[in-house]
Amino acid sequence: MSFRTEQDMLGQYDIEEDRYYGINTKRALENFKLEYHNTNIKLIKELALIKKAAATVNGKLMYLDEDKAKAIAQASEEVIAGKFNEELCTNALQGGAGTSANMNVNEVIANRAIELLGGKKGDYSLVHPLNDVNMCQSTNDVYPTALRIAAIKLIRQLSEELAKLQQRFQEKEQQFNHIIKLGRTELMDAVPMLAGQGFGAYAKALERDRWRIYKVEERLRQINIGGTAIGTGLNAPLKYIYMITEELQDLTGLGLARSDYPMDITQNADVFVEVSGLLKACSTNLIKISADLRLLASGPAGGIGEIKLPQMQAGSTIMPGKVNPVITEMITQVAIKVIANDQAITMAASMGQLELNAFMPLIADSLLQSLQLLKDGVTIFGEKCVEHIDVDKEECERNLIGSTALAAAIVQHIGYDKASYVAKKAIEDGVSIKEVLINERLFTPEEAEQLLNPFEVTKPGIPGRS
Amino acid sequence: MSFRTEQDMLGQYDIEEDRYYGINTKRALENFKLEYHNTNIKLIKELALIKKAAATVNGKLMYLDEDKAKAIAQASEEVIAGKFNEELCTNALQGGAGTSANMNVNEVIANRAIELLGGKKGDYSLVHPLNDVNMCQSTNDVYPTALRIAAIKLIRQLSEELAKLQQRFQEKEQQFNHIIKLGRTELMDAVPMLAGQGFGAYAKALERDRWRIYKVEERLRQINIGGTAIGTGLNAPLKYIYMITEELQDLTGLGLARSDYPMDITQNADVFVEVSGLLKACSTNLIKISADLRLLASGPAGGIGEIKLPQMQAGSTIMPGKVNPVITEMITQVAIKVIANDQAITMAASMGQLELNAFMPLIADSLLQSLQLLKDGVTIFGEKCVEHIDVDKEECERNLIGSTALAAAIVQHIGYDKASYVAKKAIEDGVSIKEVLINERLFTPEEAEQLLNPFEVTKPGIPGRS
Amino acid sequence: MSFRTEQDMLGQYDIEEDRYYGINTKRALENFKLEYHNTNIKLIKELALIKKAAATVNGKLMYLDEDKAKAIAQASEEVIAGKFNEELCTNALQGGAGTSANMNVNEVIANRAIELLGGKKGDYSLVHPLNDVNMCQSTNDVYPTALRIAAIKLIRQLSEELAKLQQRFQEKEQQFNHIIKLGRTELMDAVPMLAGQGFGAYAKALERDRWRIYKVEERLRQINIGGTAIGTGLNAPLKYIYMITEELQDLTGLGLARSDYPMDITQNADVFVEVSGLLKACSTNLIKISADLRLLASGPAGGIGEIKLPQMQAGSTIMPGKVNPVITEMITQVAIKVIANDQAITMAASMGQLELNAFMPLIADSLLQSLQLLKDGVTIFGEKCVEHIDVDKEECERNLIGSTALAAAIVQHIGYDKASYVAKKAIEDGVSIKEVLINERLFTPEEAEQLLNPFEVTKPGIPGRS
Amino acid sequence: MSFRTEQDMLGQYDIEEDRYYGINTKRALENFKLEYHNTNIKLIKELALIKKAAATVNGKLMYLDEDKAKAIAQASEEVIAGKFNEELCTNALQGGAGTSANMNVNEVIANRAIELLGGKKGDYSLVHPLNDVNMCQSTNDVYPTALRIAAIKLIRQLSEELAKLQQRFQEKEQQFNHIIKLGRTELMDAVPMLAGQGFGAYAKALERDRWRIYKVEERLRQINIGGTAIGTGLNAPLKYIYMITEELQDLTGLGLARSDYPMDITQNADVFVEVSGLLKACSTNLIKISADLRLLASGPAGGIGEIKLPQMQAGSTIMPGKVNPVITEMITQVAIKVIANDQAITMAASMGQLELNAFMPLIADSLLQSLQLLKDGVTIFGEKCVEHIDVDKEECERNLIGSTALAAAIVQHIGYDKASYVAKKAIEDGVSIKEVLINERLFTPEEAEQLLNPFEVTKPGIPGRS
Repeated sequence: MSFRTEQDMLGQYDIEEDRYYGINTKRALENFKLEYHNTNIKLIKELALIKKAAATVNGKLMYLDEDKAKAIAQASEEVIAGKFNEELCTNALQGGAGTSANMNVNEVIANRAIELLGGKKGDYSLVHPLNDVNMCQSTNDVYPTALRIAAIKLIRQLSEELAKLQQRFQEKEQQFNHIIKLGRTELMDAVPMLAGQGFGAYAKALERDRWRIYKVEERLRQINIGGTAIGTGLNAPLKYIYMITEELQDLTGLGLARSDYPMDITQNADVFVEVSGLLKACSTNLIKISADLRLLASGPAGGIGEIKLPQMQAGSTIMPGKVNPVITEMITQVAIKVIANDQAITMAASMGQLELNAFMPLIADSLLQSLQLLKDGVTIFGEKCVEHIDVDKEECERNLIGSTALAAAIVQHIGYDKASYVAKKAIEDGVSIKEVLINERLFTPEEAEQLLNPFEVTKPGIPGRS
Repeated sequence: MSFRTEQDMLGQYDIEEDRYYGINTKRALENFKLEYHNTNIKLIKELALIKKAAATVNGKLMYLDEDKAKAIAQASEEVIAGKFNEELCTNALQGGAGTSANMNVNEVIANRAIELLGGKKGDYSLVHPLNDVNMCQSTNDVYPTALRIAAIKLIRQLSEELAKLQQRFQEKEQQFNHIIKLGRTELMDAVPMLAGQGFGAYAKALERDRWRIYKVEERLRQINIGGTAIGTGLNAPLKYIYMITEELQDLTGLGLARSDYPMDITQNADVFVEVSGLLKACSTNLIKISADLRLLASGPAGGIGEIKLPQMQAGSTIMPGKVNPVITEMITQVAIKVIANDQAITMAASMGQLELNAFMPLIADSLLQSLQLLKDGVTIFGEKCVEHIDVDKEECERNLIGSTALAAAIVQHIGYDKASYVAKKAIEDGVSIKEVLINERLFTPEEAEQLLNPFEVTKPGIPGRS
Repeated sequence: MSFRTEQDMLGQYDIEEDRYYGINTKRALENFKLEYHNTNIKLIKELALIKKAAATVNGKLMYLDEDKAKAIAQASEEVIAGKFNEELCTNALQGGAGTSANMNVNEVIANRAIELLGGKKGDYSLVHPLNDVNMCQSTNDVYPTALRIAAIKLIRQLSEELAKLQQRFQEKEQQFNHIIKLGRTELMDAVPMLAGQGFGAYAKALERDRWRIYKVEERLRQINIGGTAIGTGLNAPLKYIYMITEELQDLTGLGLARSDYPMDITQNADVFVEVSGLLKACSTNLIKISADLRLLASGPAGGIGEIKLPQMQAGSTIMPGKVNPVITEMITQVAIKVIANDQAITMAASMGQLELNAFMPLIADSLLQSLQLLKDGVTIFGEKCVEHIDVDKEECERNLIGSTALAAAIVQHIGYDKASYVAKKAIEDGVSIKEVLINERLFTPEEAEQLLNPFEVTKPGIPGRS
Repeated sequence: MSFRTEQDMLGQYDIEEDRYYGINTKRALENFKLEYHNTNIKLIKELALIKKAAATVNGKLMYLDEDKAKAIAQASEEVIAGKFNEELCTNALQGGAGTSANMNVNEVIANRAIELLGGKKGDYSLVHPLNDVNMCQSTNDVYPTALRIAAIKLIRQLSEELAKLQQRFQEKEQQFNHIIKLGRTELMDAVPMLAGQGFGAYAKALERDRWRIYKVEERLRQINIGGTAIGTGLNAPLKYIYMITEELQDLTGLGLARSDYPMDITQNADVFVEVSGLLKACSTNLIKISADLRLLASGPAGGIGEIKLPQMQAGSTIMPGKVNPVITEMITQVAIKVIANDQAITMAASMGQLELNAFMPLIADSLLQSLQLLKDGVTIFGEKCVEHIDVDKEECERNLIGSTALAAAIVQHIGYDKASYVAKKAIEDGVSIKEVLINERLFTPEEAEQLLNPFEVTKPGIPGRS
């Protein structure tokens, strides 16, 4: 293998000749040799997008020669297209607030631009990673800006997937609203409800999730581009700042806006805690819903068995015929992972110091992972599970009929204490509420029939009264 | 002591004659004998408010006799006024989804109403805790409704206190924007900034917190009152539901609205996770800000020493003269506590099952505590710390002057690599950047003077260029 | 009301004449006016114990006059006896690393000692809170030492309660090991087991908890008493250090040992994270067990219904006859609270800085609360729930018989694929495994009978083979 | 591409002919299509080790033909050697409690064994993934057993790395124990200490971490191998159980022991919470230590600057000459990640249900990641940071001399109140403690010199007294 030698303030390093990355990346590879994945490629690509925007603007402002600006822009596009994924390889848990990831992008783009201009990789007199590719920028403004753009894009996808999941549950609500079943509180028999209503309640919760996640995009649109090192804008002329903000709007199609106080955004990470907190709220819903589905589908013989989940794979290596609710278990784990990532984001955000938060790489890694996992998980959950849920009408009825769920229907007629007596007697004697009411001559059979119509009791109002 | 005997479906219990609570409360006291505080009294008072509203409505609808309705309403007001705080004593970590707290309120109000009607405590034929006080209600609708009302009231107070804290920081921004100081990233000398800008960045973060917390009230306004046991509205006539919602709007002055799907709200607790998540975001800001203040105030001799915090108390039992930043440490602990409560709320919310979340008492306890602590803490932090912060101009200048923070100002003039050399040389030789620039004949003394004007470098743009 | 005037380095303060606390406490009351409980009284009492030990030792060493030493010791005993609980009133979330709590104890003891010596409260020339009561001490050594002693005492109590709970589950194991039931994995019918085995598995988990919690006491026995401000021992002569360690051993009966590196213990809080982490492990077991019990007791008609929990209170304000598993819900909430406290302890511990952790008050508050809650909760859970659990033999059999749980028993005889076919056919045709085996002529009725003996399949081995 | 068709209870699937995995893996790939990494390869390899052990034992017991047993053993070895990493590709967040990972291993080994026996992949009549490779096993015993083995191996490596880190800090303690410096509590000047003592305190904390992590291995040695589906041992003859335990001991060299109650271990995951909790305690130490190092190294001009960290890479893309403490930031992020993983493990462990914990894949993924990250991070932290730390003697002295840190030394001579006055006066007048003592004629210059010898005050005892 042949090498080129690069130099930085700390000394020299030999780099494999065919590498697009340079000495800063090389040092990062040495320094952060953790068995852990690389910086999220979606973040990297948004960094490249910013490089493209900066080169374009710096070209227009004649800070950069036209040729250089074009070469940088083209190299950036190639990064975005995924041509250099293997060169973009800094560890996701790097120290340095993302400097290594930014330098990695700078170096890869510089060397590719050098090639495009007919030069040889490493000849930074043609295109310099810092002077040219990083011109008017600092890691501390481009990195959070790239993260916000990457997050917004994922948020939109997640929001759409949540809307679809909500829709699927609403369809289930429609599909099963003719089936009466037992409602349960604290896992004990409570009062009757429609099978569809349960799915409707899930849909409503997901509607809130979708709305929250959709709305929070607003908060991410404020970017600190042009703030450079600490948000004061040193080395970023105002013209540049206005123009790059517009350029980024054009390139992304997102309503990005320059913060009126970039120093704030450079050092404060609360917005990521906010977004992550909403993903966490969504996760609690997903854990609850998926646990409910497992419970309702439990059995087939020794469980509740009121719904059937689609069969996705053989469930056991030892129990033939067993099929497990694996998709619900997957989404539960995804949701827990999102909650765990929220923990990381919360701690990292609270540990910012003075003009910067050094732990942005962890925040970025955790937030983008949460968004991606939720998006993927919600899609699979909808398509491979919810879509195919069926309700077992007989089992629903069997569970309801044996219960004293109808005792609540008579409480306003005979009072709580007497109704308690009736319920207790029904359980002890192993007979129905109706039978007790009639046997004890509390109501005539006709009255009892009317009072205890289970469909009636799933609606507001006092049974038996208009 | 003399006793009365009460009876429920499980048997009899002797209650001290002078007690307003009854058998259900008594059992709860036995069952949940944890060394832990009682159900938040603010929650209890909102339950009493709902009892008043329900009695009023039930009176108007002639479900209740006028006398009874009035007596219940008056007894409820006395509870709200704090006359029976000692009787309202169920443990905050009770099982049963809040049934004990609700029954406790029902019993105290019933017995007080009985007294008002001239009866003797325990004579539930006059006013019955369930048939009368709890009429058309279930714990599962009144408890979450009370929690939402209590939370909104605290949210408004917190929001106001956050606005004041923001204001105080903005005043500090104005007050100190003539002082130049060193900005730091990753705790290393970075570039110059104004002392006021640091406070301005805190104000901006708190502005977001205030906004978020102010806005989230919307989500809490949807209540499931009238949903009763599982949200279907069994035993709650539509007329009653409409009227009690209006009554609660009148009594609270809050824009409460009946959920269009009460079953959802009865079982899903994601809204509390959302609110708590926003409190958590605020907490990360408070932890960051208070740590910054401690750091900037460190010393007096061996630290950064750029700001002075007000002296609140002697700091040590062994080190005379030592004064510690105790208010910042208090707010840090409050913030951590809020984050810990968020953990409890998240787990509890995710553990809802089917038509109810049995762990609402823990959610209520944690959420109200977080709101209260933040409100109190933010007030104290503002009044006893931020208000009195002073900046030490000399120390700020001393720290700045010795640094190479101005090296960034020349990077666009001589390139990153040369500027690195200059910075390194300045550190090694123990001289200023300016001296190196002049000694190395990179700039004339006049140029160097202009380029390195620290006030200039705190604004956007390339120093030395128009 | 009449007042005395006290003075400290920051100025003067009027104190109500009958107050035992002084100016430092007064300032703390002003500074930390949070609606939150006071410093745990158990911690305060251990501080008083240390004061007594120090006075005794300082008396022996003639650093203190005998009279003074005796008066301080007696005053300390009165604090321990609970005579001054109302005077010991600093907020649990105080800043200052516990200095206020320590000063509060110093002041109350000093003023009480002054009284005992015939003086007037506030006349610190007789007994000085710092020079005398706090002699050779610093908050930074007495506070962590008191916390360790308080924690060890609670750990022992918790350990005993866990042993009792384990014992109760073992009794249930014995009691119900003649009942065959369905084992479930992922809530789906799995293979047969004995009802007792389930309780045995809980007992084993609790045995581990008990063991861990019992053993971790060791780690807490190392104390930094004598380390004073930062662990170097400034102002604490070696003789004093040796003697007070012995004195504390005598007074507590605990195997306390002076750390060989008190500076470590003064600044590092990892031991509390360790202890709390073990409480968290215990909490996960309690959450799991209590959820299982709720699930197995679900019904009575529409659930699993294999066990009966004791009925503790009426369960609903609207559903007569309903009884809820409230004790299991209480213990679940206790366990979640412990996990949330662990979050607080973890964050606080990680935020220590240099020679001290300023957030010890939060750590102490959280850890002692967790220990107390677990101890109380485990006791109640055992006495009011586990003790009275019953198993419903008929329901167990009904759930088992309808299932294909026995299909696993034939897999080594006919292979997994064929056994899958048998299981699937049994479900589709609504017949038993045995019937399929016979109908399909895979086994004779006798062989099938022998193979599918459910008691046999609850033991290791291949059914039907010796 | 050519395909073979495989069949399971749910139907048929076409598998690429050259694939070693089969239909179960294929379904898992479809079902869990999350953008997330695969099941940890270290876990997979331990599963293969168990397959080898089982084949060997089943061969000896003549449950398997000798040829088959040998082929399975050899195929397992090839998996362990890493030959089939790409075939072992189920998602780490799979549902099904690890069944897919186990089936994936079964299928790959079966197909490789078939090849070794001269057959064609997919011809399961030669070697069957379940009947043969999985003989006497269930996912529910092999998966937790593999996890325990993988965890123990990583624990041993981590323990060693922690010992090295402790050693490095002890060397720093020795190296710098001649330098006197300022101790700080709550970031305020406290009392003098030796520079080495600070490193010694870190070493002690790490010693505890190492010890804890070393000891916890014991708890993981208990395995449920042979418990099969729910721990009852169905289909696993006692002879097999004894022999496979021994075989695993031989193959791993670890003191593995069969649990006396495998049903416990099959369903309870508290041991993983315990281990993770200890990793979390270690993480809090690492966060604290690395934050201290950043703080002490802050500057170079405007910070504390008492230590120098090695320079690892250029720190900024905009600030030339800036070097950041990147290794400490990396280890901080690793530690936060471990704490976040602990959150996932805690929630997953608490959500086990009845005879199994369905979320073992998340537990395994999180625990092994935590162990790996800590091991890697601690190694890098030691080698690239701690090893090269230097102390700046002059800066240490400068910070100390200007302070009133020596005021504590006189407190036992003149009392706390007078000493407070001295300290306050020294700060106000900008003079040293010594000067005040002399000027105020509290001590002669000689006495003052002796009292305030800073080296003396870093040891236990009252300065100036023998």
